[in-house]
Amino acid sequence: MTVYDIIDAKKRGLALSPEQIEYFVRAVADGTASDAQIAAFCMAVLLRGMTDEECFRLTAAMAESGEVRPRPRITGICADKHSTGGVSDSTTLVLVPVLASVGVKCAKYSGRGLGHTGGTLDKLESFPGFRVDLSPEEFEAQVESVGAAIAGQTESTVPADKRMYAVRDVTATVDSIPLIASSVMSKKLASFADAILLDVKYGDGAFVRSPEEAEKLARLMVSVGRSAGRKVCAAVTCMDSPLGDSVGCNAEVREAIEVLKGKKNALARLSLFHCRKLCALALGISEEEAQRRTEEAVASGAALRKLAEIVAAQGGDARAVYDETLLPLAEEVREIRAERGGYLHVSALGLGKANVLLGGGRRRAGDAVDHAVGILLQRRAGEKVREGDLLARVHCRSGAEEGVAAAKAAFTVSDAFEPRPLIYEFIDWEE
Amino acid sequence: MTVYDIIDAKKRGLALSPEQIEYFVRAVADGTASDAQIAAFCMAVLLRGMTDEECFRLTAAMAESGEVRPRPRITGICADKHSTGGVSDSTTLVLVPVLASVGVKCAKYSGRGLGHTGGTLDKLESFPGFRVDLSPEEFEAQVESVGAAIAGQTESTVPADKRMYAVRDVTATVDSIPLIASSVMSKKLASFADAILLDVKYGDGAFVRSPEEAEKLARLMVSVGRSAGRKVCAAVTCMDSPLGDSVGCNAEVREAIEVLKGKKNALARLSLFHCRKLCALALGISEEEAQRRTEEAVASGAALRKLAEIVAAQGGDARAVYDETLLPLAEEVREIRAERGGYLHVSALGLGKANVLLGGGRRRAGDAVDHAVGILLQRRAGEKVREGDLLARVHCRSGAEEGVAAAKAAFTVSDAFEPRPLIYEFIDWEE
Repeated sequence: MTVYDIIDAKKRGLALSPEQIEYFVRAVADGTASDAQIAAFCMAVLLRGMTDEECFRLTAAMAESGEVRPRPRITGICADKHSTGGVSDSTTLVLVPVLASVGVKCAKYSGRGLGHTGGTLDKLESFPGFRVDLSPEEFEAQVESVGAAIAGQTESTVPADKRMYAVRDVTATVDSIPLIASSVMSKKLASFADAILLDVKYGDGAFVRSPEEAEKLARLMVSVGRSAGRKVCAAVTCMDSPLGDSVGCNAEVREAIEVLKGKKNALARLSLFHCRKLCALALGISEEEAQRRTEEAVASGAALRKLAEIVAAQGGDARAVYDETLLPLAEEVREIRAERGGYLHVSALGLGKANVLLGGGRRRAGDAVDHAVGILLQRRAGEKVREGDLLARVHCRSGAEEGVAAAKAAFTVSDAFEPRPLIYEFIDWEE
Repeated sequence: MTVYDIIDAKKRGLALSPEQIEYFVRAVADGTASDAQIAAFCMAVLLRGMTDEECFRLTAAMAESGEVRPRPRITGICADKHSTGGVSDSTTLVLVPVLASVGVKCAKYSGRGLGHTGGTLDKLESFPGFRVDLSPEEFEAQVESVGAAIAGQTESTVPADKRMYAVRDVTATVDSIPLIASSVMSKKLASFADAILLDVKYGDGAFVRSPEEAEKLARLMVSVGRSAGRKVCAAVTCMDSPLGDSVGCNAEVREAIEVLKGKKNALARLSLFHCRKLCALALGISEEEAQRRTEEAVASGAALRKLAEIVAAQGGDARAVYDETLLPLAEEVREIRAERGGYLHVSALGLGKANVLLGGGRRRAGDAVDHAVGILLQRRAGEKVREGDLLARVHCRSGAEEGVAAAKAAFTVSDAFEPRPLIYEFIDWEE
């Protein structure tokens, strides 16, 4: 068996055997396969496809490509949630404390923002002192004692995925459904979460544009999870416009705290939908009962207190949960107003890119992020506005003309608006 | 414009603009494009295809990727011939002296053998002292004075092709018709030949198995040549079994000399077919007249003398043209006999690989070649043989059991034989 033969077989449209896939992934992890061979393989997979079985084998082999830790002795079921990436999507900051406060342990591995999408780790670092680089031992101990921990996965977790992703990123092979599925799920299988909710975004601001493609990806990931013996469910949700009303690290953390205090908006709606689904899946209770418990966790303030507890456990300044001046916004404020009357459109992609230009996001991995810049929406996509109405406030540094102009361009007004459903489809793990 | 966007466009099946193709080839030549990006591009081209126009632009950009020399002041039209690679195919050693002796100048760039296929440069080095590394100035001067020169193209001729080929070789992206066409034709366009005959092999021992695929490749290369303003014609010829009766450097040179002395066999038939076609194309005369002149060149001994003249001009020992003991064969001889009666099959691929195992070919570029080993066929594919008949003699070094066994395995006898045509199709440049 050679890497060459495996590329050749996939190129000819053949289904690869488990042995071929394991051989290839080992060659990626140990450096036997060259970057060129990885690129050729990924392009062949992108254009020829993979069966569900092949995708599962690829995922499992990648999950095992690094240091594999045995499941820690944690009482009860551990939950995790993963989003394929969006704009103004702070559901994790709402979901983790809500679930932890109703007795569902959360072992949440998150990522950093890249390109137009935000990342949970960056937002958590809005809390002064917050540590996202927990060791596996610290992470596991905190899940057991506090009921939740949120951290980045270590470099050695899924080395095959790390190497393949770096190649895909520069070779136009990111947008392959089986490759996305195996990348996401390999990291989930390498973690110890038992119940996983996948939030697969579709639309203007998502990697997958159409809901049909997003549903395919969601179903494939649920199938991979099932083959691996994990409880996995998936929601296909809309990312045409920003999910919440804020873009930018401090602004989004402020908004998540508002939702934990009872604010109702699309972010609250989707976060509590995820909470209900994941709570029912993890505890094996009815959805009605799960809804009652999770709504009560918000209403009672238990979820908010749990967020403060998590922040404190990870070395962050928990006073920021109760004092938003500790989550400052940049002082220069620019207003965006409607240039005509009609229905408002807000581009998630456009606002995500504007936030990068303002300094609030990353062009490439390793860039620093300005937590204080951001965009606060005053009106939502789909609303009818009149000329001159205030649409948003941009909190920026002086001279950020390019970012402000990009933010303005993300707002358009027209005579019609065809909303697409926030929750397009939900795929239960038992299906 | 970025390399990423160009890969992405080809992946989505779009036709690339001339600007995109030129940008990509420059990025390959100057190192801006990584090996992984080249691999992804080649796999996308292999699976998505290219229009004839795209292929021409790719070829032209590659041809111009290195040092481009102006056409030298050579009297008359210069001819070249290129084979896509075969076994026991010494047509070049026959064709070049025949054409040069009827007044068609030959500016022949050749390659070395690799894998199961032989290479003209290796065979020429069978003449003691023969130099294949002529400088461009030496090459051009010899074409003018002797009427022919045969040499390797310099490293700096088509650097983009050199880099792309090295990547394709390890990423299973060699067998793409537009990539083969652009690789072959870029080297031809970078040379100064005016009239070019392409011998596109099909069959068991060729890179392209079916005659239909070979014809596609041939038509594409003729079309590229036409777009570049060169007179290009192509023959699609069979490589199921070895073309001549000898495999191995010295043995093949001996056979070519026999053909120049008047021997009639398939090698002679194809060589003189090529001579006739290329002579008619280069001189603008009828095929009948071209046939008369080229056959006369052999009958009169003029072509044989011209070979001696070329060998001497390039520093080789021209006495070997008249004394075959200067082209020695390895002394250990093993016989291959028919194990049953029936129709004989001889695998070109099998004998080519056997020659590599005997030491007469190369596993990888840079390996040394043993000129004296070889296989002399006593019977031809398609002949009816009886049990015990002598089929071939293997000239080998002691202990070459693996190579001898591989040679034996290349001969099989069965109850039927369906010959495929030696010359399947000829594509004239005016078509």
